[in-house]
Amino acid sequence: MNAELSGCEKEDLADGLSENPMPEAKQEIDGLGIVKPQTVELFPEGFVFESGVQFGPVHVTYETYGTLNESKDNAILVCHALSGGAHAAGWHEGHRKPGWWDTMIGPGKSFDTDKYYVVSSSCIGSCYGSSGPASIDPNTGNPYGLQFPMVTIRDMVNVQKALVESLGIESLLSIAGGSMGGMQVLEWTVSYPDSVRSAIPIATTWRHSAQQIAFNEVARQAVMADPAWNHGDYHGTEGPRHGLAVGRMVGHITYLSDKGMENKFGRKLQSREKFGYDLSTDFEVESYLQYQGSSFVDRFDANSFLYVTKALDYFNLGERFENLADAFRHTKCPFLVIAFSSDWLYPPYQNKSIAEFVRRAGGDATFCEISSDYGHDAFLLEYEQQAPMISAFLERTAKRG
Amino acid sequence: MNAELSGCEKEDLADGLSENPMPEAKQEIDGLGIVKPQTVELFPEGFVFESGVQFGPVHVTYETYGTLNESKDNAILVCHALSGGAHAAGWHEGHRKPGWWDTMIGPGKSFDTDKYYVVSSSCIGSCYGSSGPASIDPNTGNPYGLQFPMVTIRDMVNVQKALVESLGIESLLSIAGGSMGGMQVLEWTVSYPDSVRSAIPIATTWRHSAQQIAFNEVARQAVMADPAWNHGDYHGTEGPRHGLAVGRMVGHITYLSDKGMENKFGRKLQSREKFGYDLSTDFEVESYLQYQGSSFVDRFDANSFLYVTKALDYFNLGERFENLADAFRHTKCPFLVIAFSSDWLYPPYQNKSIAEFVRRAGGDATFCEISSDYGHDAFLLEYEQQAPMISAFLERTAKRG
Repeated sequence: MNAELSGCEKEDLADGLSENPMPEAKQEIDGLGIVKPQTVELFPEGFVFESGVQFGPVHVTYETYGTLNESKDNAILVCHALSGGAHAAGWHEGHRKPGWWDTMIGPGKSFDTDKYYVVSSSCIGSCYGSSGPASIDPNTGNPYGLQFPMVTIRDMVNVQKALVESLGIESLLSIAGGSMGGMQVLEWTVSYPDSVRSAIPIATTWRHSAQQIAFNEVARQAVMADPAWNHGDYHGTEGPRHGLAVGRMVGHITYLSDKGMENKFGRKLQSREKFGYDLSTDFEVESYLQYQGSSFVDRFDANSFLYVTKALDYFNLGERFENLADAFRHTKCPFLVIAFSSDWLYPPYQNKSIAEFVRRAGGDATFCEISSDYGHDAFLLEYEQQAPMISAFLERTAKRG
Repeated sequence: MNAELSGCEKEDLADGLSENPMPEAKQEIDGLGIVKPQTVELFPEGFVFESGVQFGPVHVTYETYGTLNESKDNAILVCHALSGGAHAAGWHEGHRKPGWWDTMIGPGKSFDTDKYYVVSSSCIGSCYGSSGPASIDPNTGNPYGLQFPMVTIRDMVNVQKALVESLGIESLLSIAGGSMGGMQVLEWTVSYPDSVRSAIPIATTWRHSAQQIAFNEVARQAVMADPAWNHGDYHGTEGPRHGLAVGRMVGHITYLSDKGMENKFGRKLQSREKFGYDLSTDFEVESYLQYQGSSFVDRFDANSFLYVTKALDYFNLGERFENLADAFRHTKCPFLVIAFSSDWLYPPYQNKSIAEFVRRAGGDATFCEISSDYGHDAFLLEYEQQAPMISAFLERTAKRG
């Protein structure tokens, strides 16, 4: 398996979810400055996926910010969402945008790189450097495509654990992430309770609901309905551009809120003064979505989209336990669970339920519902509200030792 | 234009929204018994669409239930939703299901055909008999396709008005409908305030929001992304089956509620005991959606789907007035506005806002939010809760004269 090849690094657009969610992109390089990803080979004998398939070695692309202290107890792992990657903060040479959580990670920021050593890795199954269906099979010279094993959140976490160990870290000061990243946070606290000293799951859920599965399934069907998908074998072609764009558009609606869309677009029309009375784009919200769909196609691999959405749908933290409280019975770390009032993809009630189960298991969980009109995307946008809470929570964890 | 040809009457599946939303379909013909649609030609000189295009004559397919009394003041118009048609009640010969509102229309039912004369027509632009993009252009022998003029809710209503007049009816006792049908109800009260004596808009909105436009736009993009759509020219082929199925799946999620889907499907798996760990269908909700998508393709024309969703998006009752209260200033009829607690496609707040604007204009509006887990589909399912309210409202209207 060749780590240097992956399907979706053409552009510096690997933010968490929405394309360009920040109204005003920064114009100059600041904070962490230029950062560079690294890639490591793990599991030389092959990684055993949750499905039972053994496959590997596995390559993992990651970035680190700040310095690991001598006692190696200041490391924090941040976990990206569906369409994100290792590039969480700082700038890549020549790119127009910083990493997806640059507002939160850097000198003097919440994840303060003057104090902490922040690690961020691309998930396996996705397409930002780590092994996935777009990786090249050395035996054929073509991407693995659907020959790549199906991936679960637990698989992603098991690989992250090996990465963290390879960096000499036995215990993480904290682990944080929104959306799919939040699921990884939860899986860590259950799979490796002795290796995590605090946990910050944001805008997430402990299991995918029927509605969440349904949205992902429609998006996958859109990809697979495109003849250019060709059962996952589109190497050397443009691939299912139309299908993937539609799939992304479905998802994108779920990242925004009814009110947020109303505030941003309402019924504003494109350049025409009156309705076009034709099937072309009349409303601003239509062309916005079309842009989101088509720009996603330039930066993401269609098979990875299928794999990662499927991993989300498989996620059910309680599945191998009597109940979720039972899952948390060995988990001793404190939780800071953050939800956003207008997030209807992973609504506050689902986040609150995480905190309730942790408490039922005798654990320590703070739940905070931040008021926001940004919907699910708020976890990337409402940094001013999140920042002080997270800073204080991390400081408390560090003091506790 | 030839009215006998239309793209989507292959099956008796023209219910309001969801396929087979009734848990237990009736097994025997009762109520109104066998009913037959009729078709009338209107606007022999051509109908002037809201876009300014003159086109026609226009054919309208409709059904009537009950008897028009001598004073012709017992007529009620019911208006169908996105994927419905004229067949609102009773049974078509040989079909397995009655009309989409058979629970509400018939002898002794809410729209009591022993008392009232109920009229139901297929909208222009759609594909259940009335003129639309699937109608055959007599000059070419092929469907009009995208040559058919773009249609608005107001166009649909103007054609309904001509139909009702052709039946000798000057004033409707009432007009009722859910979803898109509710928009027609509202448009009637504003465009023809002297011809409506009461109005029952259900699970609807007075203007499509950005989020509603967004969902429709994704569904349209799914259709248009299918190469088999061929810019609307798929005569003699199977047409964009994959794209239309995906488009319908998008819509279908919005017809159900988070809780309703959780109750019905949860994370229940298909036949396999464990996760399949592949891209095929694992969860029941996935195969349910796939079924909804593919069965819709058998009964609906893809171009009509584009036209009718576009008509929904264009809908903004307040657009030609200073504000919505101003739109209702000539409207004297009482309103019964019904919403459903878990409907997030046309949420209760949007329905309530209708009632508030009517009152602000000095009118009489009752607003009722029915508690239901069925989401938007509730307007077709919660007949036990709707029925007594509507019966009483109609009786009061009839007494008032």
